[in-house]
Amino acid sequence: MSKPLILISNDDGITSKGIRVLVETMKRLGDVVVVAPDGPQSGMGHAITIGNTLRLEENEIFGDVSAYECSGTPADCVKIAKHFVLKDRQPHLVVSGINHGANTSISVLYSGTMSAAIEAALEGTPAIGFSLCDYSHEADFDHAVEYVDRIAKTVLEKGMTKGVALNVNIPPRRNESIKGIKICRQANAKWQEDFDQRHDPYGRRYFWMAGNFINHDKGEDNDEWAIANNYVSVVPCQYDLTAHHAISILNDEWDI
Amino acid sequence: MSKPLILISNDDGITSKGIRVLVETMKRLGDVVVVAPDGPQSGMGHAITIGNTLRLEENEIFGDVSAYECSGTPADCVKIAKHFVLKDRQPHLVVSGINHGANTSISVLYSGTMSAAIEAALEGTPAIGFSLCDYSHEADFDHAVEYVDRIAKTVLEKGMTKGVALNVNIPPRRNESIKGIKICRQANAKWQEDFDQRHDPYGRRYFWMAGNFINHDKGEDNDEWAIANNYVSVVPCQYDLTAHHAISILNDEWDI
Repeated sequence: MSKPLILISNDDGITSKGIRVLVETMKRLGDVVVVAPDGPQSGMGHAITIGNTLRLEENEIFGDVSAYECSGTPADCVKIAKHFVLKDRQPHLVVSGINHGANTSISVLYSGTMSAAIEAALEGTPAIGFSLCDYSHEADFDHAVEYVDRIAKTVLEKGMTKGVALNVNIPPRRNESIKGIKICRQANAKWQEDFDQRHDPYGRRYFWMAGNFINHDKGEDNDEWAIANNYVSVVPCQYDLTAHHAISILNDEWDI
Repeated sequence: MSKPLILISNDDGITSKGIRVLVETMKRLGDVVVVAPDGPQSGMGHAITIGNTLRLEENEIFGDVSAYECSGTPADCVKIAKHFVLKDRQPHLVVSGINHGANTSISVLYSGTMSAAIEAALEGTPAIGFSLCDYSHEADFDHAVEYVDRIAKTVLEKGMTKGVALNVNIPPRRNESIKGIKICRQANAKWQEDFDQRHDPYGRRYFWMAGNFINHDKGEDNDEWAIANNYVSVVPCQYDLTAHHAISILNDEWDI
């Protein structure tokens, strides 16, 4: 059997440490093609480039691995990979990351890492977004490799439920070793913003948005609990945003 | 009883026609505050501004209606509205739009209009994104007013299921009159991209992303069917992306 084709993207940009770790790990599992943003695209959510042009350039940063940097968002990268770079070749797996920072709970909405994975799921390709829950500059990605490898292999082997992409978060390196992998739901938590008002040298005000993460979820079956208890969390995510349970409520309550 | 406080945002920018129609309609229902992007933010999905500053300026474009233009995304606008502009005042309703173009089916993922509504739902506020399914420059918003008014009034009166925001799409003006309002699920359709490769005057290539919308959904209970059949579609959307049905599948099939 020929080797599987694996497409890699991310949102931290093609020169980031996390994507290098992902490339090294995926090279052992298949033929790898990288299409990643040419700079940081954190917090871009599922943005795409409309009304503006895109650049795409080959990049030799990964040696013999075919790689391209794109001026667009992570979702753009997956689209241009599928419809221009790979054309008639279909990837067997799309992986995104490894993000430098957590994408647990509600952060999945804002995450460029996960938008690449969800975009791939939309195209019917099994897809995984990997994130390391460590914001420090010296974040150590080494302990993530074992889990990235194991989860990617499992998805290559078993496939993925239609319409689903996986959101995988990996605890930071601690003294304690990682306890294992938990299939979870997205925790009910949110960011509480704070706007820091300042004035520029011309006297005009501007703001920095800063946020505190607040966890409202008391359950033990969610990704926040898993990370806090030193498990790798795996949340299956879908792009059907319909709140199906609310359809009958609206049909019952509304009289319009 | 005091008048309800209604926050308005959009993704086409504060000077667009659709937000003006929304302001005029909401003024009859409550006290209105506008915080909207200072320029077009279409296709921004749920992007937020990280690692960069935000501007916020008062704008007198709507006369006696308090209005602010913000340099950020629609999600940024709702965040700065809540935590800086309104501070201790809680809006009773957040409305976004009226978007110039459809946000049916999978477009909800890329939609800045809906990201403002979903951001508000996250904050526990009933929220609605309105879109007009007409891309023409001369798009007529007049026939939308009746439905915007009726749906906003209903939500103010009945409230909204927790964790849910409404995605409302309104058919374009046609000879045929609109048949009514349908509560729907998100259609299973997607964009099929095409990348138009060109060269700039310096010989460097660039791309325009163009898309064809492809509807795979044969059902009659979805938003694409509703619009095609001249109904206003209302899809309840949620920000819990967990594919709950896939949790037991993964727990069963995976052995890791």
